[in-house]
Amino acid sequence: MQINPAEHTTTTRTALVVVAHPRPDSLTAHIARLAARRLTAAGYRIDLLDLHAEGFDPRMTVADLPDWGNREKTYSLEVENQMRRILAADIVVAVFPVYWVQVPAILKGWIDRVWNYGFAYGRSKPRLAGKRALWLGLAGAADDDGVVDLMRQSLSMQLDDGVAYYCGLAQSSVGLLPGAEEKPQRVDADGNLLLDETLTGAARDTHYADLEGRAIRFVDDFLAGDRVSAVAVTDRVG
Amino acid sequence: MQINPAEHTTTTRTALVVVAHPRPDSLTAHIARLAARRLTAAGYRIDLLDLHAEGFDPRMTVADLPDWGNREKTYSLEVENQMRRILAADIVVAVFPVYWVQVPAILKGWIDRVWNYGFAYGRSKPRLAGKRALWLGLAGAADDDGVVDLMRQSLSMQLDDGVAYYCGLAQSSVGLLPGAEEKPQRVDADGNLLLDETLTGAARDTHYADLEGRAIRFVDDFLAGDRVSAVAVTDRVG
Repeated sequence: MQINPAEHTTTTRTALVVVAHPRPDSLTAHIARLAARRLTAAGYRIDLLDLHAEGFDPRMTVADLPDWGNREKTYSLEVENQMRRILAADIVVAVFPVYWVQVPAILKGWIDRVWNYGFAYGRSKPRLAGKRALWLGLAGAADDDGVVDLMRQSLSMQLDDGVAYYCGLAQSSVGLLPGAEEKPQRVDADGNLLLDETLTGAARDTHYADLEGRAIRFVDDFLAGDRVSAVAVTDRVG
Repeated sequence: MQINPAEHTTTTRTALVVVAHPRPDSLTAHIARLAARRLTAAGYRIDLLDLHAEGFDPRMTVADLPDWGNREKTYSLEVENQMRRILAADIVVAVFPVYWVQVPAILKGWIDRVWNYGFAYGRSKPRLAGKRALWLGLAGAADDDGVVDLMRQSLSMQLDDGVAYYCGLAQSSVGLLPGAEEKPQRVDADGNLLLDETLTGAARDTHYADLEGRAIRFVDDFLAGDRVSAVAVTDRVG
């Protein structure tokens, strides 16, 4: 019986890769696979959570409403299973389309229901403290459109200043990937949505190779952030 | 046969009241009923949309992904029905709990799926132009907690600068109602969640009467905003 040494050392780390798009052949799913390959190459074990494929229901249930009088509350089975996957992960990498300058409902519901009181926050020693998160959002807006800044601000407020801060994560980064649609979108001064010409041929290939490159750089920079911290700690110990 | 005159004049306006809480006995549902009564008194016909009770699914489907090449695309039956209700409304009043400084997933999904390309935006003459929206969010944070500002900013960015701006709404207001939980919540400098003492007795009654008062003022101010516009137009014509 062959043993995969990576799976049997205590130093192997786990990345929970969360995908939030209904089409398995979407650019979002493609970028998630690309990120997973990069993480595997860096030595991570991958736990792939395809929210649509697994049938995750983002609607809050009565069972999953926080009980402010009881931090030890048991949540629904679906949510407790998701909590275990987050606990088992060292890093969370979520890949999603940006809808209305924010995460899509299915990902919002995963956060609403699973990153819940008593588990993710509300303890003096947060259970998720030290974990790290990368949020990769694909947007149809053209790279140079003004709405891209609004998206970045809005996502960072929600994910970095909201979720990561409350839960004591060691790092939280938003990586925004505009230009995801074949017809790049922009908004004029009156708020009208304008569509650029559809990308075709070599221009299209170059465009998407560039987008893939940016996604990989977000993953690499995120991983380097951890190595820098580790080196810094070693230096101090030395 | 008695005829309700309000329902048979062309001047009767419709308010779509959207509720986004799983419990019908929640404070959110209570505030929604209060708002509906106030709107009825002001002459509005109410279309009550209880997203949980109607079983609305916030998960984006392949059928409802926008087709950027076709603004006349037909969406799913569920979504087309929701579009008709928005078209029939003069104002939209959404009442929801604030989760993670944002709207809950079920309301986000209603926006993601229904306020879609070709219907809500992406036309030179927006179909929803001139409609008005009030977003009433109930938050567990104590009134004086710093996170309240973050919630207000984050919601306004998403709903006013995002949805309302793209869709050409005539007005969009966020009414934030902190102090909704019986144990008011605050976050200390280290990001720990602290719970105040549970409200009881007369203090509890006063607290919730005040919250109801603030909700009613948000509705009244929103309605007054419209009357001011109408008067201003009349003055100019006169």
